[in-house]
Amino acid sequence: MSAQASTPVAVTRLSTAQPDFEAAFQKVLHWSAETDDAIEQRVAEILAAVRTQGDAAVLEFTARFDGVQAASVAALELTREELKAAFDAITPEQRAALESAAARVRSYHERQLQACGLSWQYTDADGTVLGQKVTPLDRVGIYVPGGKAAYPSSVLMNAIPAHVAGVGEIIMVVPTPRGEKNPLVLAAAYVAGVSRAFCIGGAQAVGALAHGTATVPKVDKITGPGNAYVAAAKRRVFGLVGIDMIAGPSEILVLADGTTPPDWVAMDLFSQAEHDELAQSILLCPDAGYIAQVQAAIERLIDGMPRKDVIRASLEGRGALILTRDMEEACAISNRIAPEHLEVSSAEPNRWEPLLRHAGAIFLGAYTSESLGDYCAGPNHVLPTSGTARFSSPLGVYDFQKRSSLIQVSEAGAQILGPTAAILAYGEGLQAHAQAAEFRLRKPI
Amino acid sequence: MSAQASTPVAVTRLSTAQPDFEAAFQKVLHWSAETDDAIEQRVAEILAAVRTQGDAAVLEFTARFDGVQAASVAALELTREELKAAFDAITPEQRAALESAAARVRSYHERQLQACGLSWQYTDADGTVLGQKVTPLDRVGIYVPGGKAAYPSSVLMNAIPAHVAGVGEIIMVVPTPRGEKNPLVLAAAYVAGVSRAFCIGGAQAVGALAHGTATVPKVDKITGPGNAYVAAAKRRVFGLVGIDMIAGPSEILVLADGTTPPDWVAMDLFSQAEHDELAQSILLCPDAGYIAQVQAAIERLIDGMPRKDVIRASLEGRGALILTRDMEEACAISNRIAPEHLEVSSAEPNRWEPLLRHAGAIFLGAYTSESLGDYCAGPNHVLPTSGTARFSSPLGVYDFQKRSSLIQVSEAGAQILGPTAAILAYGEGLQAHAQAAEFRLRKPI
Repeated sequence: MSAQASTPVAVTRLSTAQPDFEAAFQKVLHWSAETDDAIEQRVAEILAAVRTQGDAAVLEFTARFDGVQAASVAALELTREELKAAFDAITPEQRAALESAAARVRSYHERQLQACGLSWQYTDADGTVLGQKVTPLDRVGIYVPGGKAAYPSSVLMNAIPAHVAGVGEIIMVVPTPRGEKNPLVLAAAYVAGVSRAFCIGGAQAVGALAHGTATVPKVDKITGPGNAYVAAAKRRVFGLVGIDMIAGPSEILVLADGTTPPDWVAMDLFSQAEHDELAQSILLCPDAGYIAQVQAAIERLIDGMPRKDVIRASLEGRGALILTRDMEEACAISNRIAPEHLEVSSAEPNRWEPLLRHAGAIFLGAYTSESLGDYCAGPNHVLPTSGTARFSSPLGVYDFQKRSSLIQVSEAGAQILGPTAAILAYGEGLQAHAQAAEFRLRKPI
Repeated sequence: MSAQASTPVAVTRLSTAQPDFEAAFQKVLHWSAETDDAIEQRVAEILAAVRTQGDAAVLEFTARFDGVQAASVAALELTREELKAAFDAITPEQRAALESAAARVRSYHERQLQACGLSWQYTDADGTVLGQKVTPLDRVGIYVPGGKAAYPSSVLMNAIPAHVAGVGEIIMVVPTPRGEKNPLVLAAAYVAGVSRAFCIGGAQAVGALAHGTATVPKVDKITGPGNAYVAAAKRRVFGLVGIDMIAGPSEILVLADGTTPPDWVAMDLFSQAEHDELAQSILLCPDAGYIAQVQAAIERLIDGMPRKDVIRASLEGRGALILTRDMEEACAISNRIAPEHLEVSSAEPNRWEPLLRHAGAIFLGAYTSESLGDYCAGPNHVLPTSGTARFSSPLGVYDFQKRSSLIQVSEAGAQILGPTAAILAYGEGLQAHAQAAEFRLRKPI
């Protein structure tokens, strides 16, 4: 123990039994993704410049924002040899870890392809064939953050599902502030097998991928997380290209029944809090004694964490330890939050799982720390944040595919469908629709 | 034949063999979804008013834009009895057509649910369970246009997949300019079984659904087409709620090998052109003689069409008859366009279908008029427009579901995954992630 005791970590403590719980709970949850007008304006200008001036604008913004001077955008492209050299230069343990993680992520997404990503069709009694053809996107762009949050694991999580879907070409962009390249990011790009990679970032990289330049190919969809500029740029190019989602701060919710060692839970809360000060860690538990043990573990463990300042700021600013009446109530509150990561740290995780309706990923049982899922269990770590798990899904193979309906009406089928279509079309005042159906009838209606 | 011959329909004629084909083709395809700053500004104000003033703002905008004065938003709600009364008041043929179309649409989307909308999981050798849980959205809003383009079929196409997905509550909004209710739209809402319906529209309806008011419940996702104000509002609330897509003008592309009666193809081109002047109808065919026959059919048939002015404006402004070298080239050009509706009007449709990679819906063979698919074949008629079929899909059951990853790591699995996760986490500078994995190890690494 250090000679000077540190200040206790002032995490918000709530109980669902307290009279003002609802207001206090709303305060904890409050997070506003207000759009910043200055950022919006700046991003609109950057995108317009990239659209009209192409490579020249990309070079100018890269020099200005990343401090990287290059003679051409081609000079900012990473060669396959550079990626391989990065892979060869990391430690054998890191190489093995990247390859093992990649193999598991690939295996999971292959199962996903089989489960929900294949074409299907059926034939009606009259010979009419109906179905859906599922095809991969031709070319996608993956945005990989650089600088303080450079995550090689994100390269795997974006590129591998695209590969499994059968995407023809994967273009990676990653900013390299002051020219600093992250060796693990480059090594991950080698392992994941991206087609091409450019050291560009920010709104200018999003613009280059969306509009295409002389050097950077235009893609069909852009996925991957980024800062406020990247998020604003993705929102603006949505429609011209597909995008995955607009990510907010990361969150973990732990539902605990008091059977998991408190240190484990404290460290799981830390693992979210260490991302950044806006990250949110919440514990829901019906056992007041256990909550006290977790809080004690927080106090005991925090000083050992290199990122203790970020962890403290996050826990004090947005964290919460919430006492519930029972596990059922904890599940109900979890559904209101619709968390990105949901740990069911319980001896009976499969008892509670059916009650949990909204979450990006559900981690069941004491051994399933979020961090195992973040890196290598197999499922994707790109997940819906800020309650968007109510209506959106983890990044997956399906994000790199699209569907086309197939309709092959037989002559006999046209006789059955024609009158129905004609009646409805006339009702909508669309006479050409009606007559197109009637032309296919053997005898007029 | 009328005494006065009408002016010929001046549809653009192109040949892929002409030297300036590429430029002329680009001109045909050019359509710019420029955002209109005035609309953007107006929509931002409307959304802000609805967010802060709720029902009062909805009432005010409904009075101003639709000319409907109501004492309360509750007074704008359609009761189940009103919907039933509308259903009872339409003709028996219309009732039968709506019910028959609904049954086919339901049947198709039930197949879709089975094919790609079910939960799945698998167990690793070490006992770790991985999978995905698929759940319906709790509550969705469907926007149904009113006024000049009031389409009862769109009510079926939005509400039925939501029902099949298992959505708990479906809230329909439909503007009723000057209080005029479309009986077929109300009847379709009855057949489709929407939970509640409000006579409101425009950006104010989108705002009410996205933010919720005292009367209109907040939804998780908004689907359905609308005008420029509705599109701008949907784009703005994206993230707070899910949205389906931002639709542009409707399009048809017909690939013809010259074996379909030319009148049928002419009427199919009309059926798209009659939607509105910006709608696009394109014919690709390797047979110049057949193209001439289709053009003659256009001249012969247009004067019989009640919507001939709209059809002419659309065909002359955005239509094209394109002579290709062969069917293979026609397929390649189709892939560049990525049309919303793609008719393969050929005696060998299944020969060409494998070559077609980007389209919202593919209609195979001469009997499969687009209009059969629009109303009652079964597949959805809400389809990606403006080339977005390169990366997006028809509206479907999957739009009303979301996925949660499931991860249950066994104690044995944690021993295998832990070291990999820890090595990668340390590499990213995320020590709490690493320690959370290490805490689960029986012996330290």
